[in-house]
Amino acid sequence: MSVLVVGSIGLDTVKTPIAEHADLLGGSASYASVGASFFTDVNLVGIVGEDFPQAHVDFFGSRKIDLEGLEIVPGKTFRWSGEYHVDLNTRDTRSIALNVFEQFNPTLPPSYNNTPVVLLANIAPTLQSRVLDQMVQPKFVIADTMDLWINIAKDDLLALLKRVDMLILNDGEARQLTGENSLIKAGARIRELGPRYVAIKKGEHGCLLFGENEFFSCAAYPLEEIHDPTGAGDTFAGGLAGYLASQDHGHVTPESLRRAVVFGSVLASYNVEAFSLERLRTLTPEDIKKRYHSFKTMSHFEVA
Amino acid sequence: MSVLVVGSIGLDTVKTPIAEHADLLGGSASYASVGASFFTDVNLVGIVGEDFPQAHVDFFGSRKIDLEGLEIVPGKTFRWSGEYHVDLNTRDTRSIALNVFEQFNPTLPPSYNNTPVVLLANIAPTLQSRVLDQMVQPKFVIADTMDLWINIAKDDLLALLKRVDMLILNDGEARQLTGENSLIKAGARIRELGPRYVAIKKGEHGCLLFGENEFFSCAAYPLEEIHDPTGAGDTFAGGLAGYLASQDHGHVTPESLRRAVVFGSVLASYNVEAFSLERLRTLTPEDIKKRYHSFKTMSHFEVA
Repeated sequence: MSVLVVGSIGLDTVKTPIAEHADLLGGSASYASVGASFFTDVNLVGIVGEDFPQAHVDFFGSRKIDLEGLEIVPGKTFRWSGEYHVDLNTRDTRSIALNVFEQFNPTLPPSYNNTPVVLLANIAPTLQSRVLDQMVQPKFVIADTMDLWINIAKDDLLALLKRVDMLILNDGEARQLTGENSLIKAGARIRELGPRYVAIKKGEHGCLLFGENEFFSCAAYPLEEIHDPTGAGDTFAGGLAGYLASQDHGHVTPESLRRAVVFGSVLASYNVEAFSLERLRTLTPEDIKKRYHSFKTMSHFEVA
Repeated sequence: MSVLVVGSIGLDTVKTPIAEHADLLGGSASYASVGASFFTDVNLVGIVGEDFPQAHVDFFGSRKIDLEGLEIVPGKTFRWSGEYHVDLNTRDTRSIALNVFEQFNPTLPPSYNNTPVVLLANIAPTLQSRVLDQMVQPKFVIADTMDLWINIAKDDLLALLKRVDMLILNDGEARQLTGENSLIKAGARIRELGPRYVAIKKGEHGCLLFGENEFFSCAAYPLEEIHDPTGAGDTFAGGLAGYLASQDHGHVTPESLRRAVVFGSVLASYNVEAFSLERLRTLTPEDIKKRYHSFKTMSHFEVA
């Protein structure tokens, strides 16, 4: 089964304490769709300007990513520039130029309406809802979000949450959304807002998955060096959604969701090893399998 | 096999955002010895004043804790008072009165010298070394420490580290000791200072275990409410050391150490459910077994 991915596609300028690179392929839908494409067919919905390099379009096309939903319109592509602090855990946005993204009003190709798994990657919740309006009985809907929308579009986000099966957000955002300092309480509160499942990403501390009578704690891969954290969360969401779509006709079980969280974590751990999507370009199914096994090994202990 | 525990024994006054209690049983050796006693016989080495309530001595004696090494001397017992911040993750020390602890110069009863597993719970590294001087070929030596000793007695601590098999410390302390922000790097650096194994405690984010070609990530138990974090780390160390001593004649393997980390985490997760050692008083082997199983369940995922 295939997965629909909607989100931003942009050109990023990223500065870390080690290096700076300009005009990199970026955006939540770029990371998420490429991440998902390791597992299944992807229907990509997004918008770029006429300045968007054809090489990036070709890169998407070289993967299992359908491009009928990619709008290329007159104007400039969305741009983001950010600078990471020394510990790479926090960053400042230096500039944002919405450009053609300002006019984004996603209209799905009719062939996309029945995609069973939907990943609403990080964009404004009104746009996420608009995509959902066009879907015909999706089996599993996942939404990602960020602090910006909790700040400026909380009502829209709360309306969206009633319509999704799973919300993905990071620890700070979970605290911000619920007012709960405890992530265990925050996970439970978010489930009361609508989603059956909640994944709280904790960066170097891994990820927590909450469901009904369900709690899964996934470790983080022990990387000594992180080169660029940009897109880690989007890649996680993409890998997770792609894996779910590839399993059991998109029918999600607590067990398949746990495996999906691990696969998402595997992809994210690779992604941060290089700038932009560079590591995903060379990543092989064997690499993924190997690190999945490492996750299993590093969290294993025997029954006492 | 038995475990020797040396550390502080005191009377604590603890204030949390919810409640305040005075003159509670506390100290690193109190938590650690009671924690260890769930698994094996404990030789306790510590000092208290004549004001130390007989009821606390009786409590230790009601467990598998040998009290020949407990000195009761003229003067007042060590006292500590602390106040936790709203999130319970940080605290301020309000007062410390060393009292009889100032004259502590641990001299082991001869019957303690051959104890195979040694837990040097959190006290000054010179005192920890002095205990080690009196041991005859211990099989496995574990040291706990804290930020205070890294600040004021770093050379003593570094000398101690060359003589121990395992160091236990928290994330902030690992960063402080090594100057490495990455815990993965910090764990590796600490191993270069001497200990074959390092456990870095991350509070609500669980615990990382580093060894040669060995990395284990243990989740934290998902508690909605924490009543008093005091002694969590000491209880963790005690449970870990006690379990190791109970296994295979004190011969430690990477597998037994992983299980020991989980048992330590189980005990610590119970301990924070109530003030002082109150929860440990009522804790049963069945409770421990049940939560160990929960740790297994919450970190389990299938091979893909």
